[in-house]
Amino acid sequence: MQIVKVQTPSAQYQIFAGTGLIDTLEARMTRILAALGRKLPKRLFILTSPEIWDLWSKRILSSFTNTPTILLLPAGERHKNLRSVEKLLREMAKAGGDRSSILIAFGGGIVGDVGGFVASSFMRGIDFFQVPSTFLSQVDSSVGGKVGVNLPEGKNLVGAFHHPLAVFADMELLNTLPDRELRAGLFESVKAGMIRDRALLRFMEENSARILGRDTASLEKVIAASIRMKADVVSKDERENGLRMILNLGHTLGHAIESVTGYRKLLHGEAVGWGIIAALHLGRKRRTISEAQFDRLMGLVYLYGPLPALKLNPQRLVDASAKDKKHRGDVRRFILPVGIGDATVVEDVTTDELLEAARYMLALAKALPEQVEVKVLAAHG
Amino acid sequence: MQIVKVQTPSAQYQIFAGTGLIDTLEARMTRILAALGRKLPKRLFILTSPEIWDLWSKRILSSFTNTPTILLLPAGERHKNLRSVEKLLREMAKAGGDRSSILIAFGGGIVGDVGGFVASSFMRGIDFFQVPSTFLSQVDSSVGGKVGVNLPEGKNLVGAFHHPLAVFADMELLNTLPDRELRAGLFESVKAGMIRDRALLRFMEENSARILGRDTASLEKVIAASIRMKADVVSKDERENGLRMILNLGHTLGHAIESVTGYRKLLHGEAVGWGIIAALHLGRKRRTISEAQFDRLMGLVYLYGPLPALKLNPQRLVDASAKDKKHRGDVRRFILPVGIGDATVVEDVTTDELLEAARYMLALAKALPEQVEVKVLAAHG
Repeated sequence: MQIVKVQTPSAQYQIFAGTGLIDTLEARMTRILAALGRKLPKRLFILTSPEIWDLWSKRILSSFTNTPTILLLPAGERHKNLRSVEKLLREMAKAGGDRSSILIAFGGGIVGDVGGFVASSFMRGIDFFQVPSTFLSQVDSSVGGKVGVNLPEGKNLVGAFHHPLAVFADMELLNTLPDRELRAGLFESVKAGMIRDRALLRFMEENSARILGRDTASLEKVIAASIRMKADVVSKDERENGLRMILNLGHTLGHAIESVTGYRKLLHGEAVGWGIIAALHLGRKRRTISEAQFDRLMGLVYLYGPLPALKLNPQRLVDASAKDKKHRGDVRRFILPVGIGDATVVEDVTTDELLEAARYMLALAKALPEQVEVKVLAAHG
Repeated sequence: MQIVKVQTPSAQYQIFAGTGLIDTLEARMTRILAALGRKLPKRLFILTSPEIWDLWSKRILSSFTNTPTILLLPAGERHKNLRSVEKLLREMAKAGGDRSSILIAFGGGIVGDVGGFVASSFMRGIDFFQVPSTFLSQVDSSVGGKVGVNLPEGKNLVGAFHHPLAVFADMELLNTLPDRELRAGLFESVKAGMIRDRALLRFMEENSARILGRDTASLEKVIAASIRMKADVVSKDERENGLRMILNLGHTLGHAIESVTGYRKLLHGEAVGWGIIAALHLGRKRRTISEAQFDRLMGLVYLYGPLPALKLNPQRLVDASAKDKKHRGDVRRFILPVGIGDATVVEDVTTDELLEAARYMLALAKALPEQVEVKVLAAHG
């Protein structure tokens, strides 16, 4: 097991990454609360999705002497909205939840985001724990305190900064994760390596077969390094006033792809994968990376493909990206890779540049899925 | 003009109480932002209610060079819900609001509570200013950072702690306030005196005619003292872990009255007025106040009456108070007056004691409205 510390101006807590964590949840939570001079409350809520709960309820519940109240959120981005939040808050009020109640968000990124926002707003804020069940939620969304839901006008437009008391990233939960979701999640680790962790990047280049083959030691290494990178960035810039923005490498166009396709066609990590390709192209054009570095980084993206094919109008993508909330005032902000293992925030990317990057990406997305697939198969063998 | 400072672990800002503030809003906000190294953003939202806006829009808008976007929230507690929050958030997204946008909550307590919660959750939190337009919102709800909305299961069950960048309490706004609302609001000042400000209490005893007659200097004194008391308590205990609980004197049964009557029959301050009477009775029984002190404090409550008559089942009130979120775990908490100008939090009030206090209060509420009215008329003369 590895332990990563998060320390921001508003919170200080640990992220545990390893195996067997879900069998000892109550004891671990009790210990963490005791260190804060508190006890496990009477009313404990677990927010989860029906699918996840079917798989793991027995093992989770066997660790509890005090049976928690189960709240269910149906799977899917379309349930990540204020209506679900209201429904859950009302269930908690009806079940006798009070200010000392604690919520455990057990599931993927959507459960974590919705659960965190429910915890942040129930009676003006109760404590919560994160037990992320997908690769993506373990390395990304459970780290950093960003919680919230979507509006019809855009993704994550409503939310809060609300840190958990701890995160338990149990790798055993990944055993039931479909290959496609693992691959998609790994693009956040690819991103982590590109923006701030050269060693992780090299490890992912050299061990893609082991990682995609779910070798426990290799996966733990990737997960812990990804968490550590994000925890480090978040500890230095909790509210995304500066450094934290680099975490958005690949996300400007990634979010635009998700928005234009109604969040239905691609997994988040896949959209980010395509967004990274656009960012690499723009980096090459702006010479923040050389042609050789571009080739190397594109090779890394390919290793964790195949990315699903896309047929979209580039102008629509650019229009959608203008609505992204990373767009502050009239400034168009973009994250560019800098060499191998670094990144920078630029504020002056023009619509034409973005359009060209979108075109480059979409040409690949239309033409190259087979080639990408071949490369990945090779990496597996 | 008087300036009161609020300084909590999470925020530091000033409350301005005086006249002419609404004619100089833009300049004042610009100065406050400049001190934070920031500029007035392009997108400024004013959340207000149609009635308030009809009265004051011209004067408010004349102070702005950059015309704000107006968001309207219909008056009434029944609009203080998540549906209104969602509607407002969507309007802000559609109008191009971004992270740098600022919201001005201009209206009574409901506008402030809803507006504050909208500001706290839009894009995970934007800055806001409070311009409270009622006595109650000036002395109470705009101070302290508590924002939120109701659920069908109870009042203020959803919310956040989100402090404004400043509060502008312009007493001119009170000119259009109906007498009943002024009287109701004054019960929060009565409470302020009882729990922590003996000088305010004496001033309110000796000057009730001037205060109820809206003498500017007297009102400013009451408002500023009430704000100062609350700001002081909140600065010492932002999250209501201890001291801040004393602010709930009169609120345990006050909230229960509001809940049982569906928030329609009484104004909040009136319900608190009745709740204070119940608390005084319980204080007398527990001997935290003497009989003489009980009589003196009851006299003060009567001075600011008449409180509307009430016919309720005491058991229903007690049941409703158990759902109050000040009720932590199994402990029944209650705030008792201690002598003149002090209060304490007790954790062991039994259902029987509460029931008896409710019965005492309801007997008065059924039998004494005429007597109360006579006393008030006397005070006016």
